[in-house]
Amino acid sequence: MPETTVLRVAYQGERGAFSEAAALALYGPQAEMVPCLSFDEVFRQVQVGACDRGLIPIENSLAGSVHRNYDLLLQHNLYIVGETILRIEHHLIANPGVRLEDVRRIYSHPQALAQCEQTLAAMGAIELVPTYDTAGSAMLIKEQGLRDAAAIASLRAADLYGMNVLRSNLEDVADNYTRFLALATEPIRPSGPSKTSLAFAGRNVPGSLFKMLSVFALRDIDLTKIESRPHRGKPWEYLFYLDFEGSLHEERCRLAVEHLQEIAAFLRVFGSYPRAQMPNGNHHNGL
Amino acid sequence: MPETTVLRVAYQGERGAFSEAAALALYGPQAEMVPCLSFDEVFRQVQVGACDRGLIPIENSLAGSVHRNYDLLLQHNLYIVGETILRIEHHLIANPGVRLEDVRRIYSHPQALAQCEQTLAAMGAIELVPTYDTAGSAMLIKEQGLRDAAAIASLRAADLYGMNVLRSNLEDVADNYTRFLALATEPIRPSGPSKTSLAFAGRNVPGSLFKMLSVFALRDIDLTKIESRPHRGKPWEYLFYLDFEGSLHEERCRLAVEHLQEIAAFLRVFGSYPRAQMPNGNHHNGL
Repeated sequence: MPETTVLRVAYQGERGAFSEAAALALYGPQAEMVPCLSFDEVFRQVQVGACDRGLIPIENSLAGSVHRNYDLLLQHNLYIVGETILRIEHHLIANPGVRLEDVRRIYSHPQALAQCEQTLAAMGAIELVPTYDTAGSAMLIKEQGLRDAAAIASLRAADLYGMNVLRSNLEDVADNYTRFLALATEPIRPSGPSKTSLAFAGRNVPGSLFKMLSVFALRDIDLTKIESRPHRGKPWEYLFYLDFEGSLHEERCRLAVEHLQEIAAFLRVFGSYPRAQMPNGNHHNGL
Repeated sequence: MPETTVLRVAYQGERGAFSEAAALALYGPQAEMVPCLSFDEVFRQVQVGACDRGLIPIENSLAGSVHRNYDLLLQHNLYIVGETILRIEHHLIANPGVRLEDVRRIYSHPQALAQCEQTLAAMGAIELVPTYDTAGSAMLIKEQGLRDAAAIASLRAADLYGMNVLRSNLEDVADNYTRFLALATEPIRPSGPSKTSLAFAGRNVPGSLFKMLSVFALRDIDLTKIESRPHRGKPWEYLFYLDFEGSLHEERCRLAVEHLQEIAAFLRVFGSYPRAQMPNGNHHNGL
């Protein structure tokens, strides 16, 4: 029989993690999911060819950009080849037969505990136990057969581990979205509505950002994100993250990036990829 | 005896919290420190006049902007009247006589636990307990006389509560800075090197950000921060946070902001205040 090619996708967390849901949204159930302990490990798996894609969270609507993953993007030679946006809903899940009043400890990732802070405070004297992963917490409770503990994790984690939902939507703010990126060793050529991501540093003169943005404005290219950040290790310089609508395979976008290369002190292009829609169907227009 | 006027400063956390260190850096030991349970409470204390100043973290060099505090700035009618930047160093502190090998549980704020994740993982099977505050964790261990627990908190917390440092600098990345802002009900008129902060939304047309930045570039005004963010509740619009060098009491800055008012769909000015230096003495130049 011929060997079939299955796409291997690395992500941080256990089965049922939000990054796995993002990987499923982009690559479907036929892809092979490869759980990793850290973001570094996700990048490494893709860089060495052990996985075809890596899935990373890059921006949360409450917590902002995940700077660690921007740092890792700059440290590796990978390209962005896709994006997807998930609404993050947290559920309290426990082993079958365990009731809400039995729960003495709640396990989850520190970010999930923080996003449910007010709800948890109102639940009274329950011990909170931070762990490396939301879904990993459910798995631990299942494996150890705990009867006095629950995890904060996704509905999918409850399904995967055969656990019950004690309480839904624990998140303090419903408007909680995370944008994820897919990484690969080679860039792609997207068709349809696209986005391009890059990082650049300006020269240290007043108005340098304005000049750098002119390369997009003069060509009517819509920006969808801009963020400045002190350039690590170069305390007199700034680094920018920028996303724009369009693909490097469109001439005006390619020319804009060539023009930016002329002006910028540093430029790194992460590639072009199909643009994700918000889960509610809204489209964020340009800057 | 005449009543002396003591400046009352609200901050989130207990005595010895990093926000308190920021308050001390700006207002000195003669100010009265008022610990609060939440950021909301800090804003409320200043808004109702119970405190003269509020101290809030606004940006961390690893975790990015504290969007929650930007949201609270937009919801209240307060002004920014100062800023300071602290290097964040985490220490493992315990009651006198407790040794490192006695420690079975470590208490701290989820952000502090996250910033020390790799160091803690290397310490083996110790239970991590997330709490509402770094210094509050030290206080709890002191008050309950715990002999098998330690807190991750500041050196100042160890001093304040008469506790010992078991291990220093647990943070995974040394380059860990937080910028704090001071808030008041009335704006100030800073002298010397100043900064001004504002938030604005553009009209939804290509190049609108470029046009809005022109009001600064045309007047050679240096920007020190820019960040875009989907405008909550207005899914087709973006909100920008922007800081620039200079004060509203300088004519070119005042004219630039008036010009921005002409172009922007929404503008909120948070005020001008003396510019902080980095703790290492470096000055981040403009964008």
